Amino acid sequence: MNLPSSAQPSTRIGDVMRLIRGRIAARSLTPGEKLPSIRALAASMQLSTSTVVEAYERLGAEGVICSRPGSGFFVAGPLAPLSMAEIGPRLDRAVDPFWVSRQSLQADDAMLKPGCGWLPPDWLPQASLRRGMRQLARAEESTLADYGTPLGLAPLRQLLARRMAERGVEASADQIVLTDSGTHAIDLVCRFLIEPGDTVLVDDPCYFNFLAVLRAHRARIVGVPMTPSGPDLVHFERAIAEHAPRLYITNAAIHNPTGASLSPVTAHRVLKLAEAADLTIVEDEVFADLEPVVAPRLAAFDGLQRVVQVGSFSKTLSAAARVGHVALRQDWVEGLVDLKIATSFGSSQLSSSLVLQVLRDGSYRKHVEGLRLRLARAAVEVGGRLKALGIRPWLEPQAGIFLWCQLPDGADAAALSQAALAQGLVLAPGNVFSPTQSAPDFMRFNVAQSQDERLFAFLRQALGRRTR
Amino acid sequence: MNLPSSAQPSTRIGDVMRLIRGRIAARSLTPGEKLPSIRALAASMQLSTSTVVEAYERLGAEGVICSRPGSGFFVAGPLAPLSMAEIGPRLDRAVDPFWVSRQSLQADDAMLKPGCGWLPPDWLPQASLRRGMRQLARAEESTLADYGTPLGLAPLRQLLARRMAERGVEASADQIVLTDSGTHAIDLVCRFLIEPGDTVLVDDPCYFNFLAVLRAHRARIVGVPMTPSGPDLVHFERAIAEHAPRLYITNAAIHNPTGASLSPVTAHRVLKLAEAADLTIVEDEVFADLEPVVAPRLAAFDGLQRVVQVGSFSKTLSAAARVGHVALRQDWVEGLVDLKIATSFGSSQLSSSLVLQVLRDGSYRKHVEGLRLRLARAAVEVGGRLKALGIRPWLEPQAGIFLWCQLPDGADAAALSQAALAQGLVLAPGNVFSPTQSAPDFMRFNVAQSQDERLFAFLRQALGRRTR
Repeated sequence: MNLPSSAQPSTRIGDVMRLIRGRIAARSLTPGEKLPSIRALAASMQLSTSTVVEAYERLGAEGVICSRPGSGFFVAGPLAPLSMAEIGPRLDRAVDPFWVSRQSLQADDAMLKPGCGWLPPDWLPQASLRRGMRQLARAEESTLADYGTPLGLAPLRQLLARRMAERGVEASADQIVLTDSGTHAIDLVCRFLIEPGDTVLVDDPCYFNFLAVLRAHRARIVGVPMTPSGPDLVHFERAIAEHAPRLYITNAAIHNPTGASLSPVTAHRVLKLAEAADLTIVEDEVFADLEPVVAPRLAAFDGLQRVVQVGSFSKTLSAAARVGHVALRQDWVEGLVDLKIATSFGSSQLSSSLVLQVLRDGSYRKHVEGLRLRLARAAVEVGGRLKALGIRPWLEPQAGIFLWCQLPDGADAAALSQAALAQGLVLAPGNVFSPTQSAPDFMRFNVAQSQDERLFAFLRQALGRRTR
Repeated sequence: MNLPSSAQPSTRIGDVMRLIRGRIAARSLTPGEKLPSIRALAASMQLSTSTVVEAYERLGAEGVICSRPGSGFFVAGPLAPLSMAEIGPRLDRAVDPFWVSRQSLQADDAMLKPGCGWLPPDWLPQASLRRGMRQLARAEESTLADYGTPLGLAPLRQLLARRMAERGVEASADQIVLTDSGTHAIDLVCRFLIEPGDTVLVDDPCYFNFLAVLRAHRARIVGVPMTPSGPDLVHFERAIAEHAPRLYITNAAIHNPTGASLSPVTAHRVLKLAEAADLTIVEDEVFADLEPVVAPRLAAFDGLQRVVQVGSFSKTLSAAARVGHVALRQDWVEGLVDLKIATSFGSSQLSSSLVLQVLRDGSYRKHVEGLRLRLARAAVEVGGRLKALGIRPWLEPQAGIFLWCQLPDGADAAALSQAALAQGLVLAPGNVFSPTQSAPDFMRFNVAQSQDERLFAFLRQALGRRTR
């Protein structure tokens, strides 16, 4: 019931705004939390619903709260972009950096995932993993039950140091810290090096979870356009001058999503610019094992002075094991390890022992070589089928699992992805990779997950209908 | 060489201070980083070393930098307490919240660890773990190689929901999120609920890693004295009134380090105070399986409205597997899972499958019952031997692995721990547990790790020498 009020409408609107602001300040309403419904608040304050509507709308214009159609009003704030709890059914969720992760991770076996970022399980070294598990069943008591050492399993760190040396990066095992995943490695490095509000450069497009983890750290994100040989140097230099970034996060080896590889000239120039601006670089080489020819590593040129290298085994060995690693300056190791202990206490002895077993297994190199070949064939085949539909790869990548493609006639990749989801297909629309939202007609295809006829039938129909 | 200068000494000192401040502002010097040596800076600026010394000392007095005897000067700042990279040999490191973790985790097999927080590996269900590993070696391909679902392995979450129900906490499996450890669970909850500068209440004493993780989140920490039946209610109420805390982090079941159990009266009163102040409570029940009789759970009284419950399997099943869990309000789940994906992408399918196998194994309940008995016996025996040395338990705990003890005649537990380390013994001095540093003569003993004669010989000698 809307009661008449003797006060000025603007005063009454102000009362509602003050009430909500006060609750947010006192944290009885926290970021992401739903506000009282308009009807309920109007009743409790003996005001008309239109007064509450107006107050909510003004608070919305100020960015204090935000509305979600059909769901109500929610507290905005620093954490709000991450607290999307109430958004409801997955089809309603905006295409944000989490969209592809969530859809891919929660897809059931009946769904196709051409948009996901990993290989199907039967492309991974199953026999070797099973052998590793059987060996682990006979391991020492402490391997099965104890916490690991602060840096993580020493023989695995030694093996990683040898692998890094093969790629031109000199690091001792004491400079390598094991983590629970490559993502966890990046998160720890961000925790160690950046403060809320710091600016971080990323490639545009870049791996969408870089955007998600940086948002979790409340970093300001600045995108630098990507070229087939690395970041665009003119933009890179300008971004440094304009934004004084603290960090630049990029891929080494095969760039996600574009498949680009850093050229030696670009690598050298990026490092020179970083040195002049005292910029730290995080180089993620999660796809390194898929390279047939080793591309330049910033960490190799730099000697791990201002470059931190991270990686994991999720793409070529197992994503179920959760083992990542970070290699960094010796004098940063202890600080990073303190943060690791404070926030996760230690890395898994079991998982790292399993990874060590598989890497030591004579069959791993052969597995990886087979994988490269199989992926190269799949890239040719999938690329050909996409081109036949007018979907053009931006680059013919030298290796890896992705084709970064432009849709014909400016088709909207986000709308296409929403339509695909309704038909059991998880796609990866371009703008989830783009901090500037400048890839609306791009899409990333995982060639290992794009082998089912249903994908092409869907694309043919959806794009054909569109242009008809 | 110290060159004469025509400028005023105070101006020259100011120049040095401005230079260092400028570098810190520009981040060419970052928190924890070593400053140029006095000699080098004096030479490069053509100043006397005494000018630089004076400038450094003034910056030190301002808290901008800090000195570490024998190592030089380092940038202070928000991250500095966590970036202790350069502190050098472990014996030199101050007794801080990381001390016991680091010493315990990096101790080799020759060392004794009466101060550590976990059971020896041969106290854990080795046969069942080995059986579980062999079963896993025959698991589905996706279990061995794929990412898990965003919330984590569903059957394990269902089993956890049933276990929580046995302890009076009603939660659906959809309110339970798996994490990489109990510590990771607390870290995620902090990320979700607190902002830098927020105040968090902890028990005094409390588990030292609560202090470490809260420091990583830049929280203000306020301690509330502990009593044998829970936090001191007068102090708890006063702390809420004075500090308007956002969160209270405590143990459910068996309190670490004291062994206290919450009484129903205290539980009820704590919740009433929390409700009135809109305080969220994190209840860590990592030692729950060791309870013979279930103590009240705040989450049970509250129905997971303002209580978040976390736990793990590191104490009774395996610390090598790294599986933790958090149960929370349904409408907070999605936001927390977004943060989990952003910062670790997913929890380990392998580890959670192994934990599920062991929990389902008929022998687990028997294992836990045996553990309780063995710990009860060890507590009596170790308690008796400590008392004979004048070391008095603050409480005879009903269960668990710790005795929280006061040393005789105000002996300094930190000094004793440093001396013990030199003899291959990791002890846990009281002040690492105390946010107010009010337990200098207390020490936590792990009864399962205090069975070696060398411990008592050391204590006898060290305390005897002291009082002689």
